[in-house]
Amino acid sequence: MSFSQDNNLLAINEVEELTVNALRGLGLTATDAKDVAEILITADLMGIRTHGINRVLSYGERINVGGIKVNGSIEEERLSNSISRIKGDNSIGPLLGKKALSSSMKMAEEQGVGITFVNGSNHFGPIMPYCYYAAERGFASFICSNATTTIAPTGGKSPMFGNNPLGFGVPNPDGNHVILDMALSVVARAKIRDAKENNSSIPDSWATGTDGLPTTDPNEALKGLLQPVGGHKGYGLALVVDLLSGLLSNAAYLTHVKAWDKQPDQPQNLGHFFLVFDTKLLGSTDWLAERMNDFTKIIHSTSPINPDNPVILPGEKEQKLYEDNMEKGLSYSNKFISEMSSLASKSNSLL
Amino acid sequence: MSFSQDNNLLAINEVEELTVNALRGLGLTATDAKDVAEILITADLMGIRTHGINRVLSYGERINVGGIKVNGSIEEERLSNSISRIKGDNSIGPLLGKKALSSSMKMAEEQGVGITFVNGSNHFGPIMPYCYYAAERGFASFICSNATTTIAPTGGKSPMFGNNPLGFGVPNPDGNHVILDMALSVVARAKIRDAKENNSSIPDSWATGTDGLPTTDPNEALKGLLQPVGGHKGYGLALVVDLLSGLLSNAAYLTHVKAWDKQPDQPQNLGHFFLVFDTKLLGSTDWLAERMNDFTKIIHSTSPINPDNPVILPGEKEQKLYEDNMEKGLSYSNKFISEMSSLASKSNSLL
Repeated sequence: MSFSQDNNLLAINEVEELTVNALRGLGLTATDAKDVAEILITADLMGIRTHGINRVLSYGERINVGGIKVNGSIEEERLSNSISRIKGDNSIGPLLGKKALSSSMKMAEEQGVGITFVNGSNHFGPIMPYCYYAAERGFASFICSNATTTIAPTGGKSPMFGNNPLGFGVPNPDGNHVILDMALSVVARAKIRDAKENNSSIPDSWATGTDGLPTTDPNEALKGLLQPVGGHKGYGLALVVDLLSGLLSNAAYLTHVKAWDKQPDQPQNLGHFFLVFDTKLLGSTDWLAERMNDFTKIIHSTSPINPDNPVILPGEKEQKLYEDNMEKGLSYSNKFISEMSSLASKSNSLL
Repeated sequence: MSFSQDNNLLAINEVEELTVNALRGLGLTATDAKDVAEILITADLMGIRTHGINRVLSYGERINVGGIKVNGSIEEERLSNSISRIKGDNSIGPLLGKKALSSSMKMAEEQGVGITFVNGSNHFGPIMPYCYYAAERGFASFICSNATTTIAPTGGKSPMFGNNPLGFGVPNPDGNHVILDMALSVVARAKIRDAKENNSSIPDSWATGTDGLPTTDPNEALKGLLQPVGGHKGYGLALVVDLLSGLLSNAAYLTHVKAWDKQPDQPQNLGHFFLVFDTKLLGSTDWLAERMNDFTKIIHSTSPINPDNPVILPGEKEQKLYEDNMEKGLSYSNKFISEMSSLASKSNSLL
């Protein structure tokens, strides 16, 4: 462990120890804590720091008020050769996500394709780590989740669905998989808060005011709602994600989803959709690697608008960071480490 | 048949006869002609007139110069219990689309899920009719295709992928399925041509000029490229669609796709991706209908920005039109009918 005034650079095994112990302190079994830690640490390694191990603290707050269950009765039903459903019993999200990924990959190994629906879940971390693990084993993936209600449909001014994330992964046997992980708002709310602090206006495509109409005033925007990407197209995609992950999985959907920040003690009953298929059935590893490398080369050869910023593929930056950070380690603030250690100390007392 | 000066209102059986005979005149067998006609007529019924039976004429031009094959050797391979691949041998697109839908639904009936890849294809009509047929039989669907190269990646100024369409369908056993069918540009090029004719400027989100930068000048925009929805998010989605439908299906992708308007005599080698799964495995028909009706009701209850324009769901307008037009019939110009009849007359001489 190397120290600076405010930040500590931890080696990855130290990050793992800290995270697993903090999660055990919250009451998770060692196996469950490892599964959850793996997703959140992969997020940090990929530079997705908003969805990394910092989430252990907010998950912990909900566990403490009974909003998320530890050691719930998770049940997996096989509905057909290629479809399964996991009843999450309000367990911690990344644990259910890992189980869904395993279930869908197992069916895909047998049948070529596997779909797993999850209900009774919570925030499951970012999607990119799931797509990455699938790609590392030769599986292409399409994964999505619903979320707390924050966005209005096109033509409406009341929030009806979440900033629902969706992700796709396509493996390259040589590494450098293509992985897209996106939510359906034009920008995150944080960008509007930044504009407010800087007293600057915002593009009228970012958000609407309380009247439901586009606004360039960040103050109005913060009272209103985020706009989906591409107007009715983003609306349509967010709605489809809610149908696949919420409605069809027998979870909550639309306004039935409880807000974790407003009702932290209530089960959210979020749903997820995991689809994977085995690319090894489509051709040899060489065939796929050759095509994926050619694809990547063509995209990289795009004439750039700014020669200092060459065109990249989705997931390229994150996988580069993953490898770099694996070697370098990850840094966290003293304050955060001490909060995590405090959770971890409860784990020790449980041993 | 009822006449006005320029337009004829045809009953649907008359539209079918006209279309099937025109396609037979182009050399298709009766069975193949019926399959193709079904997709294109459904498009017209849904009000998607740009992708309706008017396409028979442009398909015919390519057939006449050898760019699309009639009576090619279409081969279907089963790659696993839940995956198949169709080698299209450069056949007419909607015929391959119908075969892919049948193949994926057959696997989904057996296994729960079916994925069918298609290569060696051409323009396959709009996606909504395929999702609609699947939904009518209780299958949810995700269908996409690559297309002629017209859009640049984010940060680039050369076109690398098409305005790739994708569609999702989720059935409601009571009818009124949710069906999203969208392409990935902010607007169609036709809207920019309209602005040019009206001497009006365009929003800077629609297109880029030759320098790759956003422009509000329709003249510059027509020399440049369409922008994908949501910037890098639309870019990511278009790229994923190309990977699923083009690269993984063993079809052409990115700049390997030939332009049908510039090289009409060359096979495009487009690819499609068809995924369907059986919603009847997830719960009873009553369970699904109740949830879909509740979902629809909640969306309809959204407080509208303009009370005259209530919020609707994707595919709602098109399915309403479908039913109305089924009764009323469809109108076509005299000129178009005479061109179709002229093709059809070749069919009669073949009998």
